Amino acid sequence: MIKQVPTLNRLVNTLQQIPYLANRNIYRIVTHFLTMDEKHLEQFCATLLAAKEKVIPCSICFAWQEADAACLFCNAPKRDQQLVCVVATWHDLLAIEKTGGYDGVYHILGGLIYPLEGIGPDDLTIEPLIKRVQTKQVTELILATNQTPEGEATAAFIARKLKEQPVRVSCLARGIPVGSALDAMDRVTVFKALAERRPF
Amino acid sequence: MIKQVPTLNRLVNTLQQIPYLANRNIYRIVTHFLTMDEKHLEQFCATLLAAKEKVIPCSICFAWQEADAACLFCNAPKRDQQLVCVVATWHDLLAIEKTGGYDGVYHILGGLIYPLEGIGPDDLTIEPLIKRVQTKQVTELILATNQTPEGEATAAFIARKLKEQPVRVSCLARGIPVGSALDAMDRVTVFKALAERRPF
Repeated sequence: MIKQVPTLNRLVNTLQQIPYLANRNIYRIVTHFLTMDEKHLEQFCATLLAAKEKVIPCSICFAWQEADAACLFCNAPKRDQQLVCVVATWHDLLAIEKTGGYDGVYHILGGLIYPLEGIGPDDLTIEPLIKRVQTKQVTELILATNQTPEGEATAAFIARKLKEQPVRVSCLARGIPVGSALDAMDRVTVFKALAERRPF
Repeated sequence: MIKQVPTLNRLVNTLQQIPYLANRNIYRIVTHFLTMDEKHLEQFCATLLAAKEKVIPCSICFAWQEADAACLFCNAPKRDQQLVCVVATWHDLLAIEKTGGYDGVYHILGGLIYPLEGIGPDDLTIEPLIKRVQTKQVTELILATNQTPEGEATAAFIARKLKEQPVRVSCLARGIPVGSALDAMDRVTVFKALAERRPF
């Protein structure tokens, strides 16, 4: 950074707050914005502000919904409202929707428990999830968090909280991904696939 | 994408136009923007629009400058105005500035010749560079483009254009990076370092 161009530096600082932007790409993105024509840049800002205003989380499942429409999951008559899939984020939800093979509803946690980053259970929508299970008819809860330490810890935390409730708690199958070679897999995956083998 | 949330999809489409944003991170950035509080988002947009308005390219060297101030390179009395370093982008300029060992001025090309992407010499500031060499006192031109096929091609193009001009044209030294092991280097680098060896 060169201190004689403060406006540019302010823009760089602002962009640095966006997650998942590699630092070495920030100046490239700055160049992109500054060489964009002004009308497009205004449109970009308008789209951003409009989305902020019009896209809100559903009060039941926390999926994004249009402010002036009902949640497309919680209000879908064709979906099984008693089957709830718990995911960390909206893009995990999209990954499950893409399969086309799930007809239940969702619950978005808004992240995973991650003490090192200061994210505890209270920062997520775990409390509303427990209430949802207690007050609505939920027969099965699928814990579809990532197979990472944080994902497993979050799933374990939720499962423990629900031990007393009459709800079936399940999680995704672990094993060899479809299309993968056995010798390319890590030891733990092969072990889990063996331990959790199924009838052919 | 789920068609029932059009405002969200519009935001995703807008973000997809920003270069260097990995597709798999777009939904994460969307979540970041939507969970940001409104005041911060408005500030973000204001910073962006202010930068667009107040940061302009210098008419001589095409480096970014504040609209209400003079170019910090072309108007620096301590800098050698006859020594011009040609770089592709602003972040290449920053890389050279960071060394603290360069006291000449710059010329920013705005990219490299890249026929596959449809970028020809006319899309860059090569014409103004030639004019600058012809009309101003420039004794040496350092071609500091990347050591990539595009960078070399662009440097060769500029050098050919300036063949008739009484200006010394140089380029950056090629060789083993400081702190690197010889056996970790690729064949071509070692070959160039050998061929362009210097007295100890």
